[in-house]
Amino acid sequence: MALLGTSKYAQGIGLSGVNPDLASERQTASFSVEGLTTVLDGGAEHTRVRRAVVEVIERDPVFSRENQYFQTQNERYEAAVRKAVHLQKKMHEMGWREDGPEFIYIYRAVAGDVAFLLHRVFMRSISVLGSDEQVAKWIPLATKHQLIGSYAQTELGHGTYLQGLETTAVFDTTTQEFILNTPKISAMKWWPGDMGRSATHTVVFAQLYVHGKCYGVHPFIVQIRSLWDHSLCPGITAGDIGPKMNFEHIDNGYLMLQNVRIPRENMLNKFCEVQPDGTYVRRGSQKINYFTMTTVRVSLLSDEVILPLMKACTIAIRYSAVRRQSKLNPGEKEAKILDYQTQQEKLLPQLAAAYAFHFVNNYLHKLFDRGYKEIQERNFNSLPELHASSSGFKAMLSQYCTAGVEICLRACGGHGYSLLSGLPSLYTKILASCIYEGENTILLLQTARFLIKCFAAASAGQPIPQSVTYLAAVKPGKCPAKNKLDFLNPDIYVEAYQHTAIRLSSSTAAKLQDLIQSGVKKHEAWNQCTVQLVQAAKAHCHYITVKNFVETVEKLENNAGIQKIMKHLCDLFALHGIFSNAGLFLHDGYISGAQMDMITASYLDLLGVIRKDAVPLVDAFDFTDKSLNSALGSYDGNVYQRLYEWAQKSPTNQQISPAYEKYLRPLLHNKLSKL
Amino acid sequence: MALLGTSKYAQGIGLSGVNPDLASERQTASFSVEGLTTVLDGGAEHTRVRRAVVEVIERDPVFSRENQYFQTQNERYEAAVRKAVHLQKKMHEMGWREDGPEFIYIYRAVAGDVAFLLHRVFMRSISVLGSDEQVAKWIPLATKHQLIGSYAQTELGHGTYLQGLETTAVFDTTTQEFILNTPKISAMKWWPGDMGRSATHTVVFAQLYVHGKCYGVHPFIVQIRSLWDHSLCPGITAGDIGPKMNFEHIDNGYLMLQNVRIPRENMLNKFCEVQPDGTYVRRGSQKINYFTMTTVRVSLLSDEVILPLMKACTIAIRYSAVRRQSKLNPGEKEAKILDYQTQQEKLLPQLAAAYAFHFVNNYLHKLFDRGYKEIQERNFNSLPELHASSSGFKAMLSQYCTAGVEICLRACGGHGYSLLSGLPSLYTKILASCIYEGENTILLLQTARFLIKCFAAASAGQPIPQSVTYLAAVKPGKCPAKNKLDFLNPDIYVEAYQHTAIRLSSSTAAKLQDLIQSGVKKHEAWNQCTVQLVQAAKAHCHYITVKNFVETVEKLENNAGIQKIMKHLCDLFALHGIFSNAGLFLHDGYISGAQMDMITASYLDLLGVIRKDAVPLVDAFDFTDKSLNSALGSYDGNVYQRLYEWAQKSPTNQQISPAYEKYLRPLLHNKLSKL
Repeated sequence: MALLGTSKYAQGIGLSGVNPDLASERQTASFSVEGLTTVLDGGAEHTRVRRAVVEVIERDPVFSRENQYFQTQNERYEAAVRKAVHLQKKMHEMGWREDGPEFIYIYRAVAGDVAFLLHRVFMRSISVLGSDEQVAKWIPLATKHQLIGSYAQTELGHGTYLQGLETTAVFDTTTQEFILNTPKISAMKWWPGDMGRSATHTVVFAQLYVHGKCYGVHPFIVQIRSLWDHSLCPGITAGDIGPKMNFEHIDNGYLMLQNVRIPRENMLNKFCEVQPDGTYVRRGSQKINYFTMTTVRVSLLSDEVILPLMKACTIAIRYSAVRRQSKLNPGEKEAKILDYQTQQEKLLPQLAAAYAFHFVNNYLHKLFDRGYKEIQERNFNSLPELHASSSGFKAMLSQYCTAGVEICLRACGGHGYSLLSGLPSLYTKILASCIYEGENTILLLQTARFLIKCFAAASAGQPIPQSVTYLAAVKPGKCPAKNKLDFLNPDIYVEAYQHTAIRLSSSTAAKLQDLIQSGVKKHEAWNQCTVQLVQAAKAHCHYITVKNFVETVEKLENNAGIQKIMKHLCDLFALHGIFSNAGLFLHDGYISGAQMDMITASYLDLLGVIRKDAVPLVDAFDFTDKSLNSALGSYDGNVYQRLYEWAQKSPTNQQISPAYEKYLRPLLHNKLSKL
Repeated sequence: MALLGTSKYAQGIGLSGVNPDLASERQTASFSVEGLTTVLDGGAEHTRVRRAVVEVIERDPVFSRENQYFQTQNERYEAAVRKAVHLQKKMHEMGWREDGPEFIYIYRAVAGDVAFLLHRVFMRSISVLGSDEQVAKWIPLATKHQLIGSYAQTELGHGTYLQGLETTAVFDTTTQEFILNTPKISAMKWWPGDMGRSATHTVVFAQLYVHGKCYGVHPFIVQIRSLWDHSLCPGITAGDIGPKMNFEHIDNGYLMLQNVRIPRENMLNKFCEVQPDGTYVRRGSQKINYFTMTTVRVSLLSDEVILPLMKACTIAIRYSAVRRQSKLNPGEKEAKILDYQTQQEKLLPQLAAAYAFHFVNNYLHKLFDRGYKEIQERNFNSLPELHASSSGFKAMLSQYCTAGVEICLRACGGHGYSLLSGLPSLYTKILASCIYEGENTILLLQTARFLIKCFAAASAGQPIPQSVTYLAAVKPGKCPAKNKLDFLNPDIYVEAYQHTAIRLSSSTAAKLQDLIQSGVKKHEAWNQCTVQLVQAAKAHCHYITVKNFVETVEKLENNAGIQKIMKHLCDLFALHGIFSNAGLFLHDGYISGAQMDMITASYLDLLGVIRKDAVPLVDAFDFTDKSLNSALGSYDGNVYQRLYEWAQKSPTNQQISPAYEKYLRPLLHNKLSKL
């Protein structure tokens, strides 16, 4: 019956073809979609390699995500392990190497749905923190998966503040061993991925004690499960931390240590070592290590933060071109919801942000590549700037993109709320990026601390890093724009962002100074300024993002069509930011109320302009249907048919519910005789 | 081993007692917590009845939500049906009646986790839309659960825009039947609760056709499953729509109709009837019906929107008083995260909003009670105002509270992300309230339409409804505040909100007028103003909420302690709103930049003041641990112990994973020999 219905309806809407409402959107693209895809990938060769990788992965049924929305946590975990193991085989088979051009696309292609990601962090921490001997011993084992590693830093009671970790490692000179303990429940390791059920080894961060003296937090390699039968090692209690908002496929775990002894050689000792007699030796600079932790924040932006927003935009915009609701003009057909100004105002700024962040991510990678070269040459001067940048941009982008994905979800109404839309999982997953690798508020305060220092240095005429030289700029009095078109001039809006960023840094620096001078203790004064410091850090990152978008657009000059639409998106991103944070720009009168009206007018005009290219602009992200895994977002736009077909696969339709026999029948039958 | 560990740690942190960090927060309350609870309940007798209901429900193991976070969609559904059936028994046993004082607390006590909620909508729609004969026939059957009803309005292709529904009901004079059909896939009923697997009957909304003429959408009672064996009736295709972001316990369903015949008497015909010869008769006023739909929006605010925010605040604030992280001052113990200004700035405005919305909900109920009385007397004058109020406040409160719950979740860092915190389910559930019973943007535009009409009427000197008389007020030029303390004067900030609300309505009305006069078609002009119309509607609701909070505080004069802390919360709510929407207040210079600095200073000061009473203020919401169902939010504050204990119950820890035998062992063993 259902099947009959299905095939009938399939013909009705022409499942074989593209929904005409979506097809028509593509006929009027003002630019070459393929050309833009190439720009995003950084060249045609990259596009080719990426597509080849995606095709290989998607053709392999082991990597299918078809049942993802119907699986339990246990099933998701099992599938992720299966995929991780299969991926090793696949890479070998395809000749893909970790340093090859394909590697960066593999994770994107499997959509993150694999186990053993922490195994990679385990390896990286040994590479960075371990001595040559340690690297030589452990890395080959890990590479060949002769062990499965994890990374146990976070505790039940401690996250971002590493110095507060409570796990202890006491050196025993008589046996040349470290004795590891979890002294209280808050010291239990909690959250490490791959640790709940998979890992055999982990890097444990613990307070080092030698002869009763504490030397602070150090990393130790600890075996937690037998390589033979996977049973827990003596003194180890470990398990899974249970259900989470997402990451069901990952076995985030807990770990308690009770008098667990490990050999002296298991402390990662590139930078510091405990010698046999207990002498503690620190050597070299740990700065390179901080740099590595800093790069993690930047390296996750593309796959974990920007791509999810791009996917959400693709789903929501395609759906909005297909969904019709109510009438714009009486007598006409129902309108595509994308034609409503309010819908444009929800989605198009997110689309512009996705592009803005893609480009600022490129900027950050360049910054870090340059920094890495300097650091290799033992020049650590750029470290503070890199740390501040990675902290601020990780926080700003994850916050913005999380909000953006949520907007996309809500903009799809009831269907967006179905897991089958793909949007709920994108949201619940990206949300975590606001918390992991440094909680966002704390990260923004790191950036703010850097800004305040640089502002002070600039005021004193001292040199400051390149990305903040603007803090020394003379503040212009008023925005010179005279009409709404002036606000499409990048010089005008870049200047406005710069002005606001300077004002927020300088006024907060002044408040801090005033408090301290009035007798408030330094740390307390800092705390009293933190709400405003966070604003200043955000304004800085926002400014850099706008400026970088403008510079990127300028460099697109050999492709007029693409440059034009990117210019529109850049304008939209900038004006949306002013419109949404109007108070920051109006505060000191740099922008007047009349100018804000001009900005609003230009901003709303731009929505109508970009709306025409909205579908081509998401097509250019070049996501396959399989990677979107969305009943609403597929390339052909046959959303209703797909929702219906996918719902059939739900376990809720594949089982006669025991609820009928147990509860409904007795309820109804009890009284059926009286009907 | 784990158990040994558990008992040892339990002693260590004293599970039997309250965490001292939480206990100390309660010793310094500036007001009577019990007194405030009574105020919230509307009197001591209400508090007594509520607690009695909660106790009865929570004592009964059938209503336990202990395993909720570990259950599959199928298990959740089965549990919800079991609870719904058991609840009938329980109510009978306890003598609780639908018109009794206990009734309103039952849903709160079971935390919404029961089936058959749509059965109640089914009954209400028959009561409101059915003739006396229809009521007499169907309501007793439904009351005794001799059938299970649902309510099938929304279709795959149509939600809020009811006129667009595509299901057809054609009258056949020869058989005196309506023939119902789903003409295309987008016409399939989609989302109705209780319909996927439970319902035997449903009210179907369909386009009525008689003799080839369409009379628009009408409601029809349709049987969809056999009362005897629950099999689908002829011509019916129905099932479950699959996984959603929440509401796993509800069997939201789909329904296709193929030549389903129902007797003429099954069209609900209080307001219109098809006579045997096909004559269509409309009678009476449908206005009372619109009123009923309008009241639904208000009736859901308390349980579905405000309570979840109160719960989220309770969890996040208690946790923030227990969680310690980093140091505020060097040399001191790690600080409670609630002592950080940024944490206060996240949580305390949400707490203030929860109170503000509780009070505005009381206001709305009074407005509707008064309106109901008038309407009973056939005076429909207040309908537009009631419709505008219910639409605007439903949208504003659901949007605000959803954002608030998300802030609470994120403010708890990694542990907030665990389902065991209770916060993810609160969030994923409240999010739906932004979409159901009218999508928020569309609702705000309804409110805006009312405001624009009233503004025009006021400008023309015509009388306008009481809640919007302010639109006729003379606009003062500038805010008279001279220092930061002036902004703790409610007259000052209420005036500022009023001024801004008027400005947004009037400027948008002007823009609309200008567009139309410049030749833009009326509907197109409306569309071009919608972003600003939404702003105007929000500003109106925000203003009313602040004004009502002020008036509520004034009436608390016989309890000084409670009045004082409520005044602080009212100030915080108002100043937070200005601080967060600074642009709206600065735009025309009503508030100057210097005044905004005063507002910011007062706002930040208030955070420190309210922080002292934060825990007592959430204690006053009087949630039991069972109703919070949160490892982070329990009254005793033993969060780490509870996280650990609850994780043990997860299915991920109760099953030897097949992944080891299938994938991990082969992987590890393959190479073990070489280790």
